[in-house]
Amino acid sequence: MAVYTSISDEDLASFLADYDIGDPLSFSGIAEGVENSNFMVRTTTGTYILTLYEKRVNPDDLPFFLNLMNHLAGKGLSCPRPVPKKSGETLSSLNGRPAAVVTFLDGIWHRKIMPVHCRALGTEMARMHQMGADFEMVRENSLSVRSWRPLLESCGPQADNVKPGLYGFLDEEIGFLEENWPTDLPRGVVHADLFQDNVFFLGDELSGFIDFYFACTDMLAYDLAICLNAWCFESDGSFNITKARLMITAYEEVRDLSDAELSALPVLARGAATRFLLTRLYDWLNHPEGAFVKPKDPMEYHRKLSFHQSVSSSAGYGI
Amino acid sequence: MAVYTSISDEDLASFLADYDIGDPLSFSGIAEGVENSNFMVRTTTGTYILTLYEKRVNPDDLPFFLNLMNHLAGKGLSCPRPVPKKSGETLSSLNGRPAAVVTFLDGIWHRKIMPVHCRALGTEMARMHQMGADFEMVRENSLSVRSWRPLLESCGPQADNVKPGLYGFLDEEIGFLEENWPTDLPRGVVHADLFQDNVFFLGDELSGFIDFYFACTDMLAYDLAICLNAWCFESDGSFNITKARLMITAYEEVRDLSDAELSALPVLARGAATRFLLTRLYDWLNHPEGAFVKPKDPMEYHRKLSFHQSVSSSAGYGI
Repeated sequence: MAVYTSISDEDLASFLADYDIGDPLSFSGIAEGVENSNFMVRTTTGTYILTLYEKRVNPDDLPFFLNLMNHLAGKGLSCPRPVPKKSGETLSSLNGRPAAVVTFLDGIWHRKIMPVHCRALGTEMARMHQMGADFEMVRENSLSVRSWRPLLESCGPQADNVKPGLYGFLDEEIGFLEENWPTDLPRGVVHADLFQDNVFFLGDELSGFIDFYFACTDMLAYDLAICLNAWCFESDGSFNITKARLMITAYEEVRDLSDAELSALPVLARGAATRFLLTRLYDWLNHPEGAFVKPKDPMEYHRKLSFHQSVSSSAGYGI
Repeated sequence: MAVYTSISDEDLASFLADYDIGDPLSFSGIAEGVENSNFMVRTTTGTYILTLYEKRVNPDDLPFFLNLMNHLAGKGLSCPRPVPKKSGETLSSLNGRPAAVVTFLDGIWHRKIMPVHCRALGTEMARMHQMGADFEMVRENSLSVRSWRPLLESCGPQADNVKPGLYGFLDEEIGFLEENWPTDLPRGVVHADLFQDNVFFLGDELSGFIDFYFACTDMLAYDLAICLNAWCFESDGSFNITKARLMITAYEEVRDLSDAELSALPVLARGAATRFLLTRLYDWLNHPEGAFVKPKDPMEYHRKLSFHQSVSSSAGYGI
C-alpha cells in the first residue's frame, strides 16, 4: 500500500493538459503496491494509471521500463502501455517526482492459485521472453548474485534474531551460489517480479502482466525460477509438483528450454529464493516501528530455499 | 488512507454473486478515507464502490446511512446509491464485517477552493436539506453539544501539551455552548461532514456528495456552520467573507433561513469548530506512535474557533 504523494486538483489538471486523454472524471489513490504511488484516473476517453516514482526507483532506469512496456505491448503482450504526452515523451514529472501515465489493464489477481493459472503463466511468460528478444535496451539485474553478499552484510548479525543461525546459513548459501551461478544461459528481458499480484486474470484466463519495475536483462530461465518460488508452493509450505510441471511444460510449448537451462533450474531456484529471502530480511530488520506496511515474512523464503537445496535435477520440478 | 481488510478473489466472487451487477473486471483498494475500507470494483455493467465498515462505524447506524443515500438519490441528489442484492437488501457482509456496494460517483475534490465552489455547495446543501424533509428515520448526532464535555475529559490535562491553556479554553467554551446551544431551530437530515474531500466537482460544477457516515438528524443550519469552518478560511487562517456570503446566499435561494437561524450562525459555527477541535485533539493525543495516518492538526480549529468567538452576528459572515 503506497500513496506517498498527495496531488492537488490543480497540479493534476495541468499535468493532464500535456496529454491527449480527455478531461478527468475521477481520480483516486490505489492502496495496493509498495514501491510507487499509483492513482486511477478515469477520463472522458478511458481509464488510466498515473504512477509517481518514489525513492526506491532509480530515475535513470525509467526509460528502460517504459520503453520495454511499450515494446511488449506493441508486440501484442497484454501489459500497461505508456501513454505519450502530446510532445511524444512518455516520461513526465509531477510534484517534483518522475511520473508516467499508462493504460489500465482489466483483471484481478488470484490469491488462491490453481494449476490452470500456472499453466497460463508459463505460456505468457514464454511469449514475453520471445517478444523481448529484439528489445535493444539493457539493464543489469541489480538484485542478482553479486548483490547478495552486500545485502547479507547490511543485514548483519541481526539476521540471527529472526532465526538463530540464519546469517551463517545465508553466508554458506551465497558462497555456493557465487561458485555455481550459471553464466552461459540464454539471456534477454525478464520481468523478475512475476508474483501473483502482478499477474491479472479474468476468470481463469490470464489477462496481463503489470509492474515491470524490476524488469532487467538476465537469464530467461531465472524468471521461471522466480515463479517456481512464487507460484508452486502451497500455504502449508509443501511444493506442488503438478503446478511446476504445468508451468514449465506450458512454457516449453512456446519457447524451448535447453538442457543447460533445465539442469540449471535448481540452482536458479535457490538463487531466486535467496534474493527474496535477503530483501525480505532486510525490510524486516529495517522497517520503522509501527509502520503501516507490514513487511513480508522472510522465513517463508527460508523454507522455500531449503526445499530447492534438496532438489538435484529438474526432475524435482516434475520435468 | 484506509484499507484495513484484504479481500481474496474467492471471497469477492462469492460476495458479488449475491448482486446483479455482472462479472468483475478489476478490483482495487482506494487509498483515500480513514474510517472504512473502500474498494473500486469495475464490472461488466459499470463501476462501483465496495465499502467494508470498520470498527468506528456502529453497525446499528448502517440502515440509516444506506436508506438515507437511497432516499436522497431517489429524489435526484447526486450521491452514491446503495445497490441492492438480488434479495433486495442493501446491507451485506464480507470478511466478517458489514459491507455494502454503492454506485460510483464521477468527480474530483478541489484542494483549492474558489468562491464559485462555495456557491455551488450552498445550493446543493440546501437541496439536500429539502430532499431530506420527508426521510422518516432518525439518528441523533452523537458528536453534538452533549458529547463535547466527555470528549474534553477523555483528552484530559494532556490537552495543555498541545497548547498551554487549551484545556481551560475548551472547558470555558463548552460551558458557553452548553448554555447557548439553540434548541428550537428547524431540524432534519444533515450530512455533518461536508468537508472538501466529500464534495466532488467536474470542473467547477458540483457533481455530488459522498461519505454520509456522519449524517444524522440535527439543526439544518448546523451543516452550514460546519461548511463555514471547512470552506471559508484561507490557508493563512484568515476568514474569506466573500466565500461565506456566496455560500449562504446560494443556500437561501433554495431554502430560506429564518431570522433565528441567521442569528444562531455564530454560536453554531463556534460549536462546529469545537466539535472538530475536540475530535482532532482526541485523535492527536491517542494516535499510535508511527501510525501511517497522520492525525490532522487540532490547532487549525483552535484558530477558527477564536475567529467565531469574535463574531457577534451573521453580519460577520457577510449576511
